[in-house]
Parts: sequence; C-alpha cells; structure tokens
Amino acid sequence: MQTLYWMAPLCGNTRAILPNHHITHFFAVSSPNLDQILDHVDSQSEQNLADLTELLRIPSISADSKFAPEVRRAAQWIVDHLGSMGLQAELIETAGHPLVYAETPAVPGAPVALVYGHYDVQPPDPLDKWTTPPFEPTIRKGRIFARGATDDKGQMFTHLKSVGAWLQASSTLPLQVKFLIEGEEEVGSKHLESFLRENVEKLSSDCVVISDTSQFAPGVPAITYGLRGIAYYELHLTGPNRDLHSGVFGGGVTNPAIVLSKMLAAIIDSEGRIQLPGFYDDVIPLTDREREEFRSLPFDQKAFEKELGINGVTGEVGFTTLERRWARPTFDVCGLTSGYQGEGSKTVLPSRASAKFSFRLVPNQDPKKVTIGLKKLLEPLVPAGITMELVDYHGAPGIVIPLDSPYLAAAADAIEIGFGKRPVFMREGGSIPIVNTFADTLNADVLLLGWGQNDDNLHAPNESFTLADFQRGIRTSAALWDSLAKINHNA
Amino acid sequence: MQTLYWMAPLCGNTRAILPNHHITHFFAVSSPNLDQILDHVDSQSEQNLADLTELLRIPSISADSKFAPEVRRAAQWIVDHLGSMGLQAELIETAGHPLVYAETPAVPGAPVALVYGHYDVQPPDPLDKWTTPPFEPTIRKGRIFARGATDDKGQMFTHLKSVGAWLQASSTLPLQVKFLIEGEEEVGSKHLESFLRENVEKLSSDCVVISDTSQFAPGVPAITYGLRGIAYYELHLTGPNRDLHSGVFGGGVTNPAIVLSKMLAAIIDSEGRIQLPGFYDDVIPLTDREREEFRSLPFDQKAFEKELGINGVTGEVGFTTLERRWARPTFDVCGLTSGYQGEGSKTVLPSRASAKFSFRLVPNQDPKKVTIGLKKLLEPLVPAGITMELVDYHGAPGIVIPLDSPYLAAAADAIEIGFGKRPVFMREGGSIPIVNTFADTLNADVLLLGWGQNDDNLHAPNESFTLADFQRGIRTSAALWDSLAKINHNA
Repeated sequence: MQTLYWMAPLCGNTRAILPNHHITHFFAVSSPNLDQILDHVDSQSEQNLADLTELLRIPSISADSKFAPEVRRAAQWIVDHLGSMGLQAELIETAGHPLVYAETPAVPGAPVALVYGHYDVQPPDPLDKWTTPPFEPTIRKGRIFARGATDDKGQMFTHLKSVGAWLQASSTLPLQVKFLIEGEEEVGSKHLESFLRENVEKLSSDCVVISDTSQFAPGVPAITYGLRGIAYYELHLTGPNRDLHSGVFGGGVTNPAIVLSKMLAAIIDSEGRIQLPGFYDDVIPLTDREREEFRSLPFDQKAFEKELGINGVTGEVGFTTLERRWARPTFDVCGLTSGYQGEGSKTVLPSRASAKFSFRLVPNQDPKKVTIGLKKLLEPLVPAGITMELVDYHGAPGIVIPLDSPYLAAAADAIEIGFGKRPVFMREGGSIPIVNTFADTLNADVLLLGWGQNDDNLHAPNESFTLADFQRGIRTSAALWDSLAKINHNA
Repeated sequence: MQTLYWMAPLCGNTRAILPNHHITHFFAVSSPNLDQILDHVDSQSEQNLADLTELLRIPSISADSKFAPEVRRAAQWIVDHLGSMGLQAELIETAGHPLVYAETPAVPGAPVALVYGHYDVQPPDPLDKWTTPPFEPTIRKGRIFARGATDDKGQMFTHLKSVGAWLQASSTLPLQVKFLIEGEEEVGSKHLESFLRENVEKLSSDCVVISDTSQFAPGVPAITYGLRGIAYYELHLTGPNRDLHSGVFGGGVTNPAIVLSKMLAAIIDSEGRIQLPGFYDDVIPLTDREREEFRSLPFDQKAFEKELGINGVTGEVGFTTLERRWARPTFDVCGLTSGYQGEGSKTVLPSRASAKFSFRLVPNQDPKKVTIGLKKLLEPLVPAGITMELVDYHGAPGIVIPLDSPYLAAAADAIEIGFGKRPVFMREGGSIPIVNTFADTLNADVLLLGWGQNDDNLHAPNESFTLADFQRGIRTSAALWDSLAKINHNA
C-alpha cells in the first residue's frame, strides 16, 4: 500500500487529496517493505519509551569524574541493548570514557551509513531548578523530562530502535548500518578523534548520520547543513595567597575579580564585535542567498523574546538574530567564580577569580588562531600582583555541508515520510566538533538530522524530549535506511 | 617618686637618663598616685590572667543561635565580675544578646569616659586548624591562645582590670568611667544603635575608649585616629529565564555575565580612579602632614608583598600602599557568581550573573550619595534583554578624629607610660560602623587604642593575645584615667 503525505505548513497532520501532477513536488512514496517496518515501529512505541526511560536513569555525566562508573554503566547498557537486538556490540576502551561500536551485516552494492551519537550528558546543575529530578525520567504534557532526554540519548536511540525494527520485521536491512556511540561528547570528544583516525577502514562509510540538533520549530523539521565551531577556555587569575579583609587591604592589593571583569569586558566591544587581533580575518561571510533564505524562515523575533522572558536582544550590529546565532562568530561567558558567594555580605578581597568562556566559530576560522589572538589580547592586561593561567579546553572549526549532496536529498525524503512534511535547510549555532573529523577522516557527507525542539532545554534544567518527536525520529530513521539504500553510491 | 620613661624606638625598655629640658618633648610624668596604681596592676598580673582565662572559657559565639545560653553566661560573668570590683552592674536585655552596663561614681569637674567593648566572639571554625581547642585557653610562647583572646575579650578586659586596680589601690577614680559591653559586635551590633539613641543621657560622656584594633607592629603602639566607611552592594543581572545553550543561542541573546563584567569594569579606570559621578566630590584629601607621618612609619613594601605572595601591587595612581589602604576610597569586588562553576567545561549562556562589591569610604563621603552615583553609572549600562537589581546592604561613613583632640594627646601620654614609648598615629582601612554612632549620638571623641598585633589571628584559627600586651594594656588604661582626668574638659 502506498501512503501519500501532504505537508501542511507548521502542522503535522496528513491527508491525501492533491492531484497526481503534484506528486513529484509534494509527495513521498514509501516502498511496500518500508510500510511493514513503519507499522512495526508504531507497534513498539510503548516498549521503545520504556527502554529509553531505562537509559535516561543512568547519570552518565562525563564532566564530573565522580560519575565515571555511571558513564561506563550507560555504555554497557547500550552494548547490552544492541546485543538484545541481535548485533555483536563492542565496548571499546579509550584513555577516557569508553566507546560503543556495532554494525549490521554488509550489503554489497548499497551504501554504508554510520550512526554517531553520544550517551554522556551535561551536568544537571542547578539541581533546585528541576521540577522532577534529572535522572528520574518523568512524562508530562507529551514530553519525557530527564537530563539527556534530547541531548543525546533520546535522539541517538531513535536509530537503534529503527534498526531494531528492521531486524525484527524484515530480518535484514537494505544497507549496512554502523553504530559509533561515544561518552565524551559533552567534554570535547577527547579520545574519539584518534580512534577515528586509527580505524578508518572499520568505520568506512558513505554518510554519517547524527541526530543531535533541533528542528527549526514545532512542525518545521529541518536538516542542518552548517554548524559553528568552538574554542572554549577557562581563565584563572590569582592575586594574594589567601582571601584578605577588604577593609584592611582594599585599594592596596590588586583585586583579581576586578581584573577578570576588565579582561572579559575587553574581549567584546559595545557593538558585539570581538576584539581579539585577527579574529575576523578568516570568517567566510554569509552569502546573499543564505541571508535571504534565513529571512524567509518562519522566525518570530517577538515570540522568541517572549519565550525567553527578555525585553529585547543585543548582538553584533548589522545582523539578524538567526544570522547571529547560526552564521556569525560570538563570545559568551559561561561561568564566573570568585570570593564569597553565600548569603549576605562578606568583606573579602578574593585570592582568586575565574571565568569559563567560549567563542563560537564559523567556517573557516581556526581555533588555534583564536587562542593566539586571545593570549595577545589578555597578556598585556595582566597587572602587577596577578598571575594568569589560561586553560585551553577544546576547539573545533565550523562546517558547512554542500547543499547538492544526494545524501541530503535522501534524508529529506525520509523526513517527509517520518514527519509528514519536507524539511527546511538551516544552520545551527552549536558545535559538534567531531563532525569535522568525520567529514575529514571518512570523506563522508554528514547528515545532521535533528529531532529535537528549541524549547527542549538541553544543557539546562528541565531538559525534555517530545514523545511525538521520539516516535517521528524512529519512523524517519527507518525510512532513511530505505531511501539511502536507493542511492547509486558508486555514481 | 617620679618615674621618668624614655621611649627607645621599637623597644620597650625604660631608663631615666635624659636632662630635664627635654621633658616636654620626650618624657611623660606620672602622678605619685598613679605610681601606686601601676604597682598594684603589676602585683595583680597573675590574678588578672586567671580571670581572663575564665572568661575565655565561655564559648560566647553570637552568630550561632545554639550558643545563645553561652553568650548570656559570658554577659552574666562580666556583670558578676564588675560586681566583685564593687560596681553596680546591669545586664540589659535587647531583642538579641544582652548588654552589660556599669559606671563608677561621677567626679564633678572631670571628664567622663565610656569604655565600649564586646564579649561575643567569632565562630571558631575550622576547628581542625586549632593547635589547642578554641575554648580551652592555653599559654604558649608568651601568648594566650583562645577564641576571643584579642577580639575582644582580652582587650576589653584591660579596662575592667585598670578600673579594678584604681578601686583597690585608691578606692576612687579621678574621673567617671562607664562600661558598655555588648554581645552582638560579631553579628553587626544589631541592637546597639537603638540602645545608644535611646540612652544618650545615661551614656553621656566626653570620650569613648575602644580597644578592638591593633598596634602598628610589634613594638610600635598606635592610636588609630581614622577609619574608612563602607558601602556594600550586591548586583544581580537577569537575562533569559533559564540557562541557554551557548551554541544555539550565543550571539543572539544578551549574556548577563558579559554585561556584569562590563559594568564592574566601568566602575574603576586603569588608574584606580572610581568612575561613579561625584564620587570624589566630598573626599577630604590627605594633608601633607599625614602623608609625611605615614611615610615615616616602618612599613616594608617588599615584605608586605612577600607575605601576601604577590609580585607587586596596583592601586590609585599617585598614592602609597598605606595611603591607599587607610585614607583613600576604594572599590573591591568581593564575590562573583554566574553560570557553570563546576569542573570542566559547560557551554551555557547563563540566565543570571551576580556580584558582591564594596566601596571603602573616607571622611566625608556619604554612603547614600555613593548609592545615587552607582545607580547613575550602572543604569545606562543595562542593555536590552537584561534586568538589573541592586541590593544596598549596609553603609557607614568614614571617620577621622581631629589630631588636635586633647583626648588623643592624653591617650598618647598614657600609652607612653603603659608601653614605654609614644604611639604612632595611624588610620585603619576597615570600618567599625558603631564608632560613627558613638561619635554622632554622644558627640564624643572616640579613642581607638588597640593593644592587639597583626598576627593575633583574629577571626581565624589559633587566635591569640600577647601576655605582655595584656599587661601593657592594663597599665596604659590605668594611666589613661589619670591623664584624661587632667583635661579641662569645659575649656
């Protein structure tokens, strides 16, 4: 049976009323075999959710070494789960948290798809802002709330479940799927890059599928064809060897918290322009076509501000909000720590002040050059009585995928089946540093197929994932194996 | 018999060899009666130490409500002790911890001195850093170690003991002494101010004697004739209604931690000048004489830096370290809080950023005007997307006692007798807010006569008080009643 879907803008409903001559533009056709698979996906929705809930209970916080055993437990859980699907999964040790790898049987003549995802999660702080505890998954208003729900356990899991559905309903897949699930994405994928470089043959594939991004809006599925890069730092300033009484010493001893403020303030000017020497030299500017496409997207500035509870925005002068978020480099302070932070007043001149901050980069900026520029800017600002330590956490350049890739077209067809409408093509402000490495080492196109939504609160309290998106993600993934298999990958 | 004392610089030894014509400059003359008193003080030194030890055993920690009965027990102990000296002492209830009040008989024609001190102590934490328990007074290397030894039980007690010596040896004092000893100094003297304002007549006096500060250095007794004031604030900036992913939103949403840095940086310029409008308008500049006196003090800049572990200092251009610490207004950030402060990196655009900071004020600055200037500076710096809340914690103006005060001169004479050398005149960078209230409500000169030393570890583990300073303090106090009584206070 053929199922015809019509894409109503901003709406997920489907109907089949359009005349035949519109088919090439508005209809997607699923193969008869795929229909069975999709039916099977639908029949498993309760079990799929129960399995995800189990995975979300594991506090696999990669940034905090206290949680290392839990990170490992999550990896083992995925190994076991892949095993229960009939796959031979491996837990691969690294110098940090382990990797999980598995693959379905090779299919001669068909392309190979590599699914990349991560099972580690961000720290859940501040805990008191969570309505229900971060590692006790709870369903409210059609969403599952838990740390990692959308980033990335829930999204990554859709591909395991689609492969499971193919194996159960059809016993084979129309192409080979490889899984590479890591546990260090939230701390910079420290050990993944060397693993990729050392295992090019094992991992060889035609496209890499990553679901760790968002739809453009509810009812507007998207393919992300560009990502920003990142350069993340921690700056420690140390003054006197102990906290001092601000009355007895204040004015006579350099205050590291004031110097920190001066340094951070010097990094960006009042027009949102970053002041690092050479920072903009390599930036690829937005094309007129891209700016036009961004402007055509249903982005409501007022609704955006209302949703965030703000009375307006600031940013780099001369750019729209979407341009600033997706395609312009930025500076953000992510954390500040110094002196007394308890209740009330304490008259202290702190011994130390620290900041965590990042630059988001666009293609063709090099994080190493950013570090050089940062040192050039900061070093002359270190006054007498202060020592500076700059920790260079991790860096990755930005990336843009060619818009004419056949894998992008196949993914668009799968989304049309799974979500009931064609996706828009967008860029994303976040970074998935490893995307560059995949593109470089495997010479594969990277498909960023995000099932999340912008209000999923990833990296924040009350992270959630919409149950309908979880289900649509599994359906799309199931359809993706079908549509990718049809590509003549030797063409 | 007259005893002549010569003040050897940095040395407490006494001898009587100088010719008579130097007496007006270098000699202090004690009355025959005072000699008997001082002899009596010396004869009582063992008993005085035993009594102090008893008081130090009482854990009168005002900040911790668990210890409220102990705080009261200390107050009652002092009442009883004053009673044993022959005085009618009162335990005066407040809404918090009680006050102790007593007075010696009025002496017509002589000035009235009010002794202010406190019997409450700081919490002793961290307990494991104490060599011997904080409430088991122990003598080592000529010091008594206990919480409250120097701050303020030991120092305050010198005045009770000197009055006791006068009463025992002479049965009368040459002037009236009033005692007001409180139990809430370490928690902000919450109930003292209203008591002062409501009891002006009872407390009326010509000078207020407070021993709750330090000597300039070992062997360099000092009178503190100036204190800085304070204006303390907490600034909260709120941006989006939750922490956001710095990749997804960074560049498009105003970052409160960056705005905070900009604001703090704007408060003080690169030359250490505070940028609040009108901030310096009311500042009384240092006189040439004061600057000269400060320069003559044995202050070793290199040793100061070495002790603090710093390679140099910065501060308001054009002033020395002592000037900056004692007599110039300053700005210090006391605490910073924003975003992620845990281990590792977290890519977050924080919802909130906060700072605690203070201005130290010099006479004649008004904390209320500082608040007005601060708002004038900060309000125009609030950008779109940020709301600002400024909490005004507490303020107190600075104070300087006129250097030509006859009470200061009398105190210097008494120190010359008690310590064997003339005091230096110093200022102090900290604030004792209640000093202003005494000066205002009683219209009295305040004598800050500190017997402590900078390494007494007040507010820290292993607090101590040098036994020799305890003894010298009692002798000085005994001499003070004599020298103050000679002032023609109606002149």
